[in-house]
Amino acid sequence: MSKTDPGHYFEDFRLGQVLVHATPRTVTAGDVALYTAFYGPRFSLFSSDEVARASGLPAAPVDPLIAFHIVFGKTVPDISLNAVANLGYAEGLFLAPVYPGDTLMAESEVIGLKENSNRKTGVVYVRTTGTNQRGEAVLRYVRWVMVRKRSAEAEVAEQATPKLAEAVAASDLIIPATLDFSKYDYALGGAPHAYEDYEIGEKIDHVDGMAIEEAEHAMATRLWQNTAKVHFNQFERAKDPSGRRLVYGGVVISTAKALSFNGLQNAGLILAINGGRHVSPYFAGATVFAWSEVLDKADLGGGVGALRLRLVATKDRPCDDFPGKDEAGTYNEQVILDFDYWAAVPKRG
Amino acid sequence: MSKTDPGHYFEDFRLGQVLVHATPRTVTAGDVALYTAFYGPRFSLFSSDEVARASGLPAAPVDPLIAFHIVFGKTVPDISLNAVANLGYAEGLFLAPVYPGDTLMAESEVIGLKENSNRKTGVVYVRTTGTNQRGEAVLRYVRWVMVRKRSAEAEVAEQATPKLAEAVAASDLIIPATLDFSKYDYALGGAPHAYEDYEIGEKIDHVDGMAIEEAEHAMATRLWQNTAKVHFNQFERAKDPSGRRLVYGGVVISTAKALSFNGLQNAGLILAINGGRHVSPYFAGATVFAWSEVLDKADLGGGVGALRLRLVATKDRPCDDFPGKDEAGTYNEQVILDFDYWAAVPKRG
Amino acid sequence: MSKTDPGHYFEDFRLGQVLVHATPRTVTAGDVALYTAFYGPRFSLFSSDEVARASGLPAAPVDPLIAFHIVFGKTVPDISLNAVANLGYAEGLFLAPVYPGDTLMAESEVIGLKENSNRKTGVVYVRTTGTNQRGEAVLRYVRWVMVRKRSAEAEVAEQATPKLAEAVAASDLIIPATLDFSKYDYALGGAPHAYEDYEIGEKIDHVDGMAIEEAEHAMATRLWQNTAKVHFNQFERAKDPSGRRLVYGGVVISTAKALSFNGLQNAGLILAINGGRHVSPYFAGATVFAWSEVLDKADLGGGVGALRLRLVATKDRPCDDFPGKDEAGTYNEQVILDFDYWAAVPKRG
Repeated sequence: MSKTDPGHYFEDFRLGQVLVHATPRTVTAGDVALYTAFYGPRFSLFSSDEVARASGLPAAPVDPLIAFHIVFGKTVPDISLNAVANLGYAEGLFLAPVYPGDTLMAESEVIGLKENSNRKTGVVYVRTTGTNQRGEAVLRYVRWVMVRKRSAEAEVAEQATPKLAEAVAASDLIIPATLDFSKYDYALGGAPHAYEDYEIGEKIDHVDGMAIEEAEHAMATRLWQNTAKVHFNQFERAKDPSGRRLVYGGVVISTAKALSFNGLQNAGLILAINGGRHVSPYFAGATVFAWSEVLDKADLGGGVGALRLRLVATKDRPCDDFPGKDEAGTYNEQVILDFDYWAAVPKRG
Repeated sequence: MSKTDPGHYFEDFRLGQVLVHATPRTVTAGDVALYTAFYGPRFSLFSSDEVARASGLPAAPVDPLIAFHIVFGKTVPDISLNAVANLGYAEGLFLAPVYPGDTLMAESEVIGLKENSNRKTGVVYVRTTGTNQRGEAVLRYVRWVMVRKRSAEAEVAEQATPKLAEAVAASDLIIPATLDFSKYDYALGGAPHAYEDYEIGEKIDHVDGMAIEEAEHAMATRLWQNTAKVHFNQFERAKDPSGRRLVYGGVVISTAKALSFNGLQNAGLILAINGGRHVSPYFAGATVFAWSEVLDKADLGGGVGALRLRLVATKDRPCDDFPGKDEAGTYNEQVILDFDYWAAVPKRG
Repeated sequence: MSKTDPGHYFEDFRLGQVLVHATPRTVTAGDVALYTAFYGPRFSLFSSDEVARASGLPAAPVDPLIAFHIVFGKTVPDISLNAVANLGYAEGLFLAPVYPGDTLMAESEVIGLKENSNRKTGVVYVRTTGTNQRGEAVLRYVRWVMVRKRSAEAEVAEQATPKLAEAVAASDLIIPATLDFSKYDYALGGAPHAYEDYEIGEKIDHVDGMAIEEAEHAMATRLWQNTAKVHFNQFERAKDPSGRRLVYGGVVISTAKALSFNGLQNAGLILAINGGRHVSPYFAGATVFAWSEVLDKADLGGGVGALRLRLVATKDRPCDDFPGKDEAGTYNEQVILDFDYWAAVPKRG
């Protein structure tokens, strides 16, 4: 028996199959420090135990994207080692905050399989759940990836394409049980903007730009034990037309999210991921810019509001004119990310 | 109202104005590990809980420069986002040690304003205080920066140039309350040199050289949540004659300080910053060298001495001939830092 | 007296001399996070407190290589600052697990001295012991380095070449006192392979490739407070024919070890280092590949087995044909590491 794990090919998956992913991971203050070093986030809730305690939490939770990256990383060897492309995310819901000391595990259920007409690849849909050491689910999301077949001739078992929600309903959002923004300190948060100050349709240019080096994205991706070869194996990537290692899409998400502080200072706590698309590849060296649009708002009660936000990131292109899709639906060629999420924000009244 | 923070321009500041800076920051063992990875410091007091306990402290405090960088970083969005240049530091005093778990906040008072004759810029002087979660001040320092005006025509309110001490008086130095060097282990410290072994006027070449990569300085600067665009936005910096991101001056200070171990092995604990000048810009790739001069000495009692040290750093130039200013007062063109501080050192007798 | 430490030259060493190395180092969760970011290891025992507890340990120990790098780093200023080459390791034995919070110190005894016939250099053999804050030895190993003489004329005192074991005997291996693999979770470990599944003579291609950047190896090496100039001083290295900083051999060991997960998923816990050779220099940018050979097996009792493994790493060369030495004993020119160690692995029956 070969001891080396070749990953799964499209014909290896079955509808309803449950995969228990390897390598549980204890989250630590070291991860938080590295996350700060990679992206420079400034949201006060994750930066300060004192701010978190004043908000009803026992200590600063880790940025929900840390939990997302860790859980995502665990799925790579089983789901996407032979992937051609990561196609999308949906129905992502953060269910409980994660604190340093918690240990995360991940499981995925195959909820959709669709062979492509060339018979060389197929799309695999999985619903992944991350749980902590108490067995509590901390996040759940769907992603779908295009996976190679080992052989074009291989027969594929039952196929199905799941029906996925266009967005998580505001009524399904879950705020941390004890979260209380009634004493939220806007000065320490970095801006006076509350739920009431954001308008649906409002666009915000986040102004700042952030370059990412090869060492930075590689370290950021290894930290999550993500093993996708495209991020690390330069010898192999030299044969690609780009000649470059591809940057993990999660690095772009976290970079853009950190940039969004400048305009969304008090809306750091992601509650749900409605969808996301890595519009074009990002290679190290280019400067990431970002802008956001308020897509929806919801009063969650108890002084907490939610903003549904579209976060668009570009490479080497400032976002003062909010580049996105043109009227024909074609993306500006410098757009690299189109990400749709819900975030909590304090409500004044 | 725009949600994006444009930072303050010179005409926005008022004498006596107090700015509460955003994003309190809990310091962790993760920050300490990163600090070690960025600079390679070897001072035993910060490296080992056991050494710290043998010195009367409850655990290893973080290098005072970590507290300095965190507090400095907090001030950037409010003070120096529109700065042309960081001109100097004075009257910096470390008031209490910082330990992992402490949460730091920062406030600044505007103590000086001086418009330049071109009316396009002005110099802002602030006294910044960093405090911990118990409201105790942990450090206080003055810095002055040249800040752009939004409009040359703008009238500037009351102006004043503060009178700043040339150096912190030895009698004002504060050593950590329970610090006790009576059992100081010189072998574990790395050298037998005590207070008595240093002579005023003595110069020490620190011999070693350290190159810094783009990824390293960018991570080091993001770790402190310092947002100055010149360090990160390569797209914008490509338009500068250098074409390069500028390295945060604090990276040079920490690099030179870590190099100073070789000769100042037992003098790692900075007590005060008398002054500092970033003589010329440093860009990634060049190798940093450093030398020190003993400017003054003071017996602080209780087995603790203080050395007033001048720390000079260069780029791509060894320091065996102690390069500094020539007789006309012009710096050698490879000098990048001239830093004046007090450090504690064990006294034998 | 010069305050700068010049390091020891060959004629400064004496047989039987004991050197207490400076700068004890408290290991933290920050070091573990950085280790993960540098190498991307996935061995479950070091990644998860829960897995470690299920294996009878109080929490996740740090990878034994972290202890090795820290202890090795401490010896550099005293042993190898003036080294021409790091020649080999032998008789390395891990004696007790290290946990975050432990403080490591190091001492070395000179056990061999052999001047080279050119009289310009000599080989120094030291047995180094790392101890924790309770004075317990956590690892012990022999290494030998070629060290410059200050002067070719200098007389060298008593010389001797120690007799070193070809490998640590299986009966000398020490497993952590409470380690219990009876409930080992192979799914969380990443593969079903147990002691029984490995055959002596079996070769495993680890498939994956990992590029290392200058920033990554420099940070990884500074983290261990290793001060060898060849890794950091680019100004000086520019005069070398390579023009490059040399990567610390320990970076190659840790990279290859992390790659070995793919095939040795449950054999992460190094018990002993039998030998190791840095066959040729590695410079940043090249992609590291690795393969392993099972050299020996030993049932240690209590459900724990040991595999003696040869780990070979290459640069820019996949290892599907297991490159090593040819029949004449000459290494393939892309081989950079030949490392021989014992690792624990769960035994099923």
